[in-house]
Amino acid sequence: MNSMNSIFNSLKTAQTQLAMHNRAAKDTALAAAADAIDKDRAGILQANVRDVAKAREGGMKESLVDRLLLNDKRIDGIIEGIDIVIRQEDPVGRVQAGWTIQNGLQIERVTVPLGVAAIIYESRPNVTADCAAIAYKTGCSILLRGSSSALESNKALVKAIKAGLAKGGGIEDAVALCESGSRDEVDVILNARGFIDVVLPRGGGDLIRRVTENARIPVIETGEGNCHIYIEPSADIEQAVQIIINAKLQRPGVCNAVETLLIHKDILAQIMPKAAAALAGKAEMRCDSLSKAAIGTPPAELVLKDVSEEDWGKEFLDNILAVKTVASCDEAVAHINRYGTKHSEAILTNDLKSAEKFRAQVDAACVYVNASTRFTDGGVFGFGAELGISTQKIHARGPMGLDTLTSIKYIVSGNGQIRS
Amino acid sequence: MNSMNSIFNSLKTAQTQLAMHNRAAKDTALAAAADAIDKDRAGILQANVRDVAKAREGGMKESLVDRLLLNDKRIDGIIEGIDIVIRQEDPVGRVQAGWTIQNGLQIERVTVPLGVAAIIYESRPNVTADCAAIAYKTGCSILLRGSSSALESNKALVKAIKAGLAKGGGIEDAVALCESGSRDEVDVILNARGFIDVVLPRGGGDLIRRVTENARIPVIETGEGNCHIYIEPSADIEQAVQIIINAKLQRPGVCNAVETLLIHKDILAQIMPKAAAALAGKAEMRCDSLSKAAIGTPPAELVLKDVSEEDWGKEFLDNILAVKTVASCDEAVAHINRYGTKHSEAILTNDLKSAEKFRAQVDAACVYVNASTRFTDGGVFGFGAELGISTQKIHARGPMGLDTLTSIKYIVSGNGQIRS
Repeated sequence: MNSMNSIFNSLKTAQTQLAMHNRAAKDTALAAAADAIDKDRAGILQANVRDVAKAREGGMKESLVDRLLLNDKRIDGIIEGIDIVIRQEDPVGRVQAGWTIQNGLQIERVTVPLGVAAIIYESRPNVTADCAAIAYKTGCSILLRGSSSALESNKALVKAIKAGLAKGGGIEDAVALCESGSRDEVDVILNARGFIDVVLPRGGGDLIRRVTENARIPVIETGEGNCHIYIEPSADIEQAVQIIINAKLQRPGVCNAVETLLIHKDILAQIMPKAAAALAGKAEMRCDSLSKAAIGTPPAELVLKDVSEEDWGKEFLDNILAVKTVASCDEAVAHINRYGTKHSEAILTNDLKSAEKFRAQVDAACVYVNASTRFTDGGVFGFGAELGISTQKIHARGPMGLDTLTSIKYIVSGNGQIRS
Repeated sequence: MNSMNSIFNSLKTAQTQLAMHNRAAKDTALAAAADAIDKDRAGILQANVRDVAKAREGGMKESLVDRLLLNDKRIDGIIEGIDIVIRQEDPVGRVQAGWTIQNGLQIERVTVPLGVAAIIYESRPNVTADCAAIAYKTGCSILLRGSSSALESNKALVKAIKAGLAKGGGIEDAVALCESGSRDEVDVILNARGFIDVVLPRGGGDLIRRVTENARIPVIETGEGNCHIYIEPSADIEQAVQIIINAKLQRPGVCNAVETLLIHKDILAQIMPKAAAALAGKAEMRCDSLSKAAIGTPPAELVLKDVSEEDWGKEFLDNILAVKTVASCDEAVAHINRYGTKHSEAILTNDLKSAEKFRAQVDAACVYVNASTRFTDGGVFGFGAELGISTQKIHARGPMGLDTLTSIKYIVSGNGQIRS
């Protein structure tokens, strides 16, 4: 893999240069990259047509083909994504803290670019431009390893981005695309100690597992979301039903959708008939015996099944909702900490002690009180562009904005100090 | 390894409980742990006598036996270490930021305990107490995996700590020691996804490599220090010689000692004879041809050798100093970024542009201008207790204080919000 070594070296050299560019220089280069994409629409769309044709020949499901597809409107979206990054503050060069120690040494803790990042992702070509822009703005080089099914589209996009960066006075070598499409490339990336400072897998569970099991470089996991809503007797019933419907049905295929309801036994009789009526014809319910009995006569259109032990651990990403009866907030917290994926968890209650216990003890990136889990999102949180949602606990947790690709450096200034 | 699984579960349960303890409760428990160590001196010293006897029987070098050895003064030091942790602020429960989005949802970013940490370390028993105290103060459980040579001492210390925590109303199960001494234990820890949130290897290069190559859980590396000092023509010569002496000789066996000097060609003639005179009889110099020639007639006691390519990559941890001639600040930066270990790097100069270039482009945790590299240390920086010095760039970089064992959580409070 000599070609990979030459890419690694080029990314590292480019990053050292980019570290010296100020915000204006980076924004100018990014604007030129967006402009190059705009001007090269025809070429990018032609490349995408080839990817789409090949995918259909290979029998790809139309729902996945749709994720791969580019059109003028989606290219507008890609350009708008770069504009959002341009409008954001520069996350590097911030002095987080500064102090002087007894011997007069001045110590400053300053944010710096993380270095060279790699992202391994699936299908959607917009991720290519989003991640290139986010990395560039933070002063990082980035190695993009997209899906082989999107290779032609990614090549065309990266070609435009690099040409634009160069035209805008930027460092085009700060962006590189893996072009062979071989699986070996991934292994080379995962072992690139000393060259790649962090790797972000962005995709399904299999990809995440492959990366976490094989990486010898730091990883930021963007994992699955097995999210829960726990409902207490003091909750507002009508509000609870609205939140259940929203968290399950508004977009069932995303990581912040709810998968399991935990319902306190003392509110089963009030909530279950209403939840069943609201979900009938829209989602399947998988209930334990108590919650099933509390429905009474199920609505005609309701698909109602018995829940199994395995269901507690599943991210359905579908119109399916598991329901478990619990006797206490403690039991709900224990269930979530056993089966949850540390993503987004909600309690619906009017009991202050329960809310405090849930907030303190549930181990998740985002803990909600009296709201839908669907709000976990970098855009909604106000972070602008988003690299994904981290479900690990070191370095970045929850929606990841630009500052995820920063590290810190201690700048120590003296006038001859030696240690005694 | 069923016993390991039961330890993992017990650590996780204990951590959930400890998350609810406030600072006063944690400090009281820690004070009781320190008191228990104080009262159990005799038992701890007896256990240590057994470790030391066994180590000497096995032919351990006396310098290593000294690291293993406990005595009354060192137990005083262990107790003082716990007192330092007690006096520090609680790093959890800090609201780092808070804002309200358009629909009225309140979002707060709050520091929380990282969870369950594991530390894999060598010989010195004081690390056992230091890390147990730091973890407890941050609300984390900790699994201690010390050296088998210190097993009896560690058992006695952990027994006292756990008894003290219990007596002080704390959670004794938040601290656990691996007691089998088998290497398999390490592999089980490195694969404990879902149980251990972070593992810190603390020891030599072999241990760090073993952990980074095999871990499937997040790692914080505390790596080697191949540190450099780059000297420019505008530097103060006398100051430069003092800094060289200090950075090389004050404690040659530590990670922040200097290993290679990079000297600008235009100052070779002024600095080399003085450096050679100062190091003669104290450290070996390994020079390239230009810097060697600049010494002129070497002092009688100077051990002077030709430097080899391999020397640039070596952390000597010894009274040896490599010397390279460079033609520019750019060349010095490139050498450091190629051979350095991202630890501590210094420039001696009076040139503002060079200082700024060096600060921005050298990729290291701590970058010094006109001072010795020896100051990279949690205590010196004012962080109180220290978990080690991180040479990686994600999560923690440089000296690691208490906040290294924290993560964040988004607390989102609403009154029925759903996503539209």
